[in-house]
Order: sequence, then structure tokens, then C-alpha cells
Amino acid sequence: MKLEFWFEFGSTYSYPSAMRIEELVTQSGVSLVWKPFLLGPIFKSQGWSDSPFNLYPAKGNYMWRDLERICRNRELEFRKPTVFPRNGLLAARVACRFSEQDWIAEFVRNVFCANFQLDKDISNRNVVKSCLPLSVEESESILSESETEHSKALLRNNSNMAVELGIFGAPSFIVGNELFWGDDRLEQAIEWSKQ
Amino acid sequence: MKLEFWFEFGSTYSYPSAMRIEELVTQSGVSLVWKPFLLGPIFKSQGWSDSPFNLYPAKGNYMWRDLERICRNRELEFRKPTVFPRNGLLAARVACRFSEQDWIAEFVRNVFCANFQLDKDISNRNVVKSCLPLSVEESESILSESETEHSKALLRNNSNMAVELGIFGAPSFIVGNELFWGDDRLEQAIEWSKQ
Repeated sequence: MKLEFWFEFGSTYSYPSAMRIEELVTQSGVSLVWKPFLLGPIFKSQGWSDSPFNLYPAKGNYMWRDLERICRNRELEFRKPTVFPRNGLLAARVACRFSEQDWIAEFVRNVFCANFQLDKDISNRNVVKSCLPLSVEESESILSESETEHSKALLRNNSNMAVELGIFGAPSFIVGNELFWGDDRLEQAIEWSKQ
Repeated sequence: MKLEFWFEFGSTYSYPSAMRIEELVTQSGVSLVWKPFLLGPIFKSQGWSDSPFNLYPAKGNYMWRDLERICRNRELEFRKPTVFPRNGLLAARVACRFSEQDWIAEFVRNVFCANFQLDKDISNRNVVKSCLPLSVEESESILSESETEHSKALLRNNSNMAVELGIFGAPSFIVGNELFWGDDRLEQAIEWSKQ
């Protein structure tokens, strides 16, 4: 069965999921589908002009501590970004347009590392380019291709589809008709995909 | 070490935690402190006039399905209440005033079963009384004692303390200075309390 991984590059809890999902899913013999989308439009439709972690400080304070504990437990490096949430628009367009390429998993992990380990500005074109595990020449054409109207429409389509599927946060996992939300539901989603 | 269980009788995810916490904590040799509180004032301070699960339908739809899956996995009976959230004020006053009695765990479980298995109105005095694992005569005096100004102040104090501790939802678990939020963090909180 297929497992769809719906993620957003600015999302904190998407980071620990992105770092382990390929290995976990491969071990389970399940096929993984990369589904980048944008949370901003979803938050806006709920009346939020910012991440709920910024709008509700108690929730935000908890999230940063919780994420720190999760990463420590998994021996995963983590540095709190100085800007949150970062704008992952260009990186998401690349991931969306090239979601079936064999370098996609590595690219996704590199972008999350740039944001949550190296505190880099992932909205910057050169930072996104440096996350592509390809030669400079190929990287340039991949970025250009990701900025076409067609590629922009692909990402908008993913974000609209997310809403239609009942997605309201990231990471989310979809297996058949079942939605699982949050890094702590990844194992359960994989179990479901084996049924 | 002590583990504080902060719960609210109307809260959906508090239900599966309440049903298993005594057994899990006892097995671990950790001492359990029952901390009933009210979510209503916390939600109000965030500008919400209702449960976020009602205000944000996508979140609410997900929660009901997630809870159903959790209960099925644990072979825990569950029926979606016809009223949500139910008013657990009186039950919380009882649990707060008598939190150190040896019948507290059973009373708490009975109230959660009334709400999430039997679909009973837990704001009703007779329903609360029927949840007390005591003789009718004792039950009546316990209810009266829970309705005094002193008992009301005790619960208000718990709810104020919850905010000061950074609590923003239920269930929450506090071990030393660490806050853990959500039924899915109970095992982690117990591990922490063993350190």
C-alpha cells in the first residue's frame, strides 16, 4: 500500500518525520509518496495570520521544548531557528515538481537540516540550490523549472488537495482513506499501510 | 518522583489517559497526583468561546476518528457523546476536593465512562453521585462538601495553577519542571519520572 507524507518545510514537527520517514517506510515495504504543501493558506482560512505556535505562546513554548526532547531522544541534531516559521515556498515548489525523482528524499532532508540544524534562510534561492544533491548546472535548470507557472500550479493544487483531504496541520500521513496527524502518528500510519 | 495528571472531564483525549494511568503509573513505582481543572477559562483567554474541536471542524473530525482508532487499539469501549464538550464542573469539584481519597481513581474512571461510553450528562448531580463508589449516604455528604465555597475555590486554584504551569490543553502531565501534553505523551512522562 501507499503512504502519503504531507509536509511543509517551515513546520517544526515535519522535521523529525522527514529525517526518518524514508528509512522506516522502506523497512516496511510500503511505497512512499512525497506531498509538500503550504500551511499558510490553511491557517489563513482558520483566521490565523501567523503560526498558531506564535499566536498562542503557551502552545509555542511547549512545542519548542517538546521538539527538543524528541530530537534528543532520537540523537537528531536540532537548533531553534532564529526566524519562525520560515518561508518554504520555493523549496516546496521544487519538491512538488520533482517529487518522483530519486534525489527527492535527500533534497527534502537537506532543506529541513538547513532550517532546523543550520538556521539558514530556506526562502533564499541559493540556499535552496545548495540543498539539491546535483551538479550546479542541473541545479540551476531545476530551480528555473520549479518557478514556471505550471510548477506553481502544481503546489497550489497540492495545498488545495490537502484541505479537501481534511488536513489541518503538518506532518500528516494519508493511507487509503485514513488521515494521521503528527510525527507521533508515523508508526501507526505505517502499521495501517501494512493491513 | 511524582507525576501530576492534569485532566478535564469534558476532554476527549483525557478519557483514554484516565482509563490507563493508574495501572501504568503503579507498575512504574511512581506516585500519581490527580489534578482536575477546567479548560473553559483557558480557551476563553485564547479568544475561543467553545472547544477548538468545534470551532475548527477539520481538527474536530480528525480528533473523533483518531480517538476511535486509539480506543479500538486498546480494546477500550467508546461511544461519541451526543453533547460535546460536556460540563464537568461538579465532577471536577468532587475530584479536586477529594483528590487524595482512595476511591478517587475509580470515581474519575466512572465519570469518564459516563461521558464517553454511556453518553450520560455528567453535569447532572445524580449522574455524578452514581459515579461515586460509595454508599448513598456518604455520596450525598461528599457532593454537599464539594459545593461549598471552599471546594469551589480549590478547583479555581487548580485551573489558575494550570495556566501558570504553561498548560494549554488536556490531558497534561507534569514531572518536576517538565510538561507533557497529550495522551500520546503519557509513556514518555512516566519514563521521565523514573530519572
